[in-house]
Amino acid sequence: MIETVRFDNDAVVVLDQSKLPGEVHFHRCHTPEEVAQAIRSMKVRGAPLIGVVAAFGLALSMLRYQGPVSGMDTYFEYNRDLLASTRPTAVNLFWALKRMEKLYRYEKRAGLQQVASRLLEEAQCMYEEDIAVNRAIGANGEALLAADSRIMTICNAGHLATCGYGTALGVIRAACARNKVNMVWACETRPVLQGARLTVWELMQDNIPVTLITDNMAGYTMKLGKVDAVIVGADRIAANGDTANKIGTFSLAVLAKYHKIPFYVAAPLSTVDISLPDGEAITIEERSQDEVRCCAATYLTVPEVEVFNPAFDLTPHNLISGIITEGGVIKAPFAEELQRLKEGR
Amino acid sequence: MIETVRFDNDAVVVLDQSKLPGEVHFHRCHTPEEVAQAIRSMKVRGAPLIGVVAAFGLALSMLRYQGPVSGMDTYFEYNRDLLASTRPTAVNLFWALKRMEKLYRYEKRAGLQQVASRLLEEAQCMYEEDIAVNRAIGANGEALLAADSRIMTICNAGHLATCGYGTALGVIRAACARNKVNMVWACETRPVLQGARLTVWELMQDNIPVTLITDNMAGYTMKLGKVDAVIVGADRIAANGDTANKIGTFSLAVLAKYHKIPFYVAAPLSTVDISLPDGEAITIEERSQDEVRCCAATYLTVPEVEVFNPAFDLTPHNLISGIITEGGVIKAPFAEELQRLKEGR
Repeated sequence: MIETVRFDNDAVVVLDQSKLPGEVHFHRCHTPEEVAQAIRSMKVRGAPLIGVVAAFGLALSMLRYQGPVSGMDTYFEYNRDLLASTRPTAVNLFWALKRMEKLYRYEKRAGLQQVASRLLEEAQCMYEEDIAVNRAIGANGEALLAADSRIMTICNAGHLATCGYGTALGVIRAACARNKVNMVWACETRPVLQGARLTVWELMQDNIPVTLITDNMAGYTMKLGKVDAVIVGADRIAANGDTANKIGTFSLAVLAKYHKIPFYVAAPLSTVDISLPDGEAITIEERSQDEVRCCAATYLTVPEVEVFNPAFDLTPHNLISGIITEGGVIKAPFAEELQRLKEGR
Repeated sequence: MIETVRFDNDAVVVLDQSKLPGEVHFHRCHTPEEVAQAIRSMKVRGAPLIGVVAAFGLALSMLRYQGPVSGMDTYFEYNRDLLASTRPTAVNLFWALKRMEKLYRYEKRAGLQQVASRLLEEAQCMYEEDIAVNRAIGANGEALLAADSRIMTICNAGHLATCGYGTALGVIRAACARNKVNMVWACETRPVLQGARLTVWELMQDNIPVTLITDNMAGYTMKLGKVDAVIVGADRIAANGDTANKIGTFSLAVLAKYHKIPFYVAAPLSTVDISLPDGEAITIEERSQDEVRCCAATYLTVPEVEVFNPAFDLTPHNLISGIITEGGVIKAPFAEELQRLKEGR
């Protein structure tokens, strides 16, 4: 399996997902600024992956630091804020940076060299944890699927969105290993086309059967009786189960409800933000209007047209059949069980 | 207003909609084969328009005929079948060809020259009727809209889909003339992007406020309380009101129902096929997989991926708030009133 991120000597090396599926290219980030830019420009994307990449970026910053000890804190905080400013919706980014900061505060008295090396170890540890967590999510989720399942998904919540294995596609991967997958319906996911570019490529690499549809075909495909379950990833899950995820997720949830098809969210517990009682407080990133106006750098429309380009939407908990985490599958009402698992009780 | 079709000397001249919005180009069809190809390749599209273009194509065939009188019927039928084979879903095509055939059978004893000239007059008459019908649809539909309406639409059911004025966009145009339109939400309508390419262009030409969204943003935009009504066109309406229209229409209808937003179909009565009791018998055209794989002739995905590319979907009558026709706005239950209006009672 291709590596989505690795630390190599003096650089954070990321798979440049903006070039897929045409080209497999690794992009070397030598500075925290370059790491931030790789996240902002969506060279790396996917909630779990950007958390870990940001952690590597923060470790990189301290490995590069050559100023006086008195400036260490300010420098750390500058880079933490730089990395935190790249994307607003996925909570994993803030979760990862907080975890790194906690370690930094604890270890900094041991000196720059020691704290920098511990930060790098911590990022590496988060990398490995992410893969293990995804395997647990896969095992928990595949139990929900019957033989010969036809599963619809949106965006890419796969190996490519994580350090490996994937969340929603991790469930599909685990189900596939048990010969349960008849077909994956990949919604192309305009405007950035993560479904067409990434999910299709990732599944075809693993010989998992996949059929591509445009996003507006989802409802009709369900109506034809061709979908047994919808499984999506998440960027942030509020305490009551309300889920922010790639734009279009909410429409799929309504369509699934209408067709009585189960709609599952697959995500690590690091995606659950129990500080928010419900989803209304989640910031939904709005991205460049040109993402919608253009496709492969060619204008599809009148270049001056007004565009609305939210990158995520919000799916209320009452449209979700279950949230698949490494701690198990949580069913409605979600609040109590989410809280219990987050607190590790 | 730009002409979408005209008969000019020895050719059917159509606005080449595949080149919009980048280029305003008129394509001359000198033979019925070229007319058929222009419909098949979607140089001309839109249910009402392809009916009239096919009628002009059939008139053109008889104007060109130089064979013996004994071969006239066979030649007429050959061209009728050629034109009928271009697109399967929109009933206006078959309705127009049938109307032309009726006239042909009646007039043919008067001789080739006379029948050819009568067919051309009939096509021209259908052209003018279409504009008048659309103005009636507009007047009937705008009465449904309150002041300051924000209206969502999909595909292009506009001036460009007809001989002029439009059906769904005719309603919007009529409402705009009464200062009732705050915003039109245009769904881009993958894969062929009629929303992004045509609706946006058409509305901006008329200074009607429009905002473009990708299809997967429709549900979230409704959830944000930004949509007061959905108005779409139709390719075929069954006797019970079930409506086949551009793929994605059904999803919008489910999403509108969920949000308690009225969902209107605007179409001429020639789009109603009372020979079909419900929508299940309507043929849904499946088009080339490459339409989905590519965008502006560049592959967006793995070129070998399996694709599902239905061009239309079916919206059951229970999701439709009203069908706006030139005969009035029909509300549920639709069957009796559709039948009455079709029969001109």
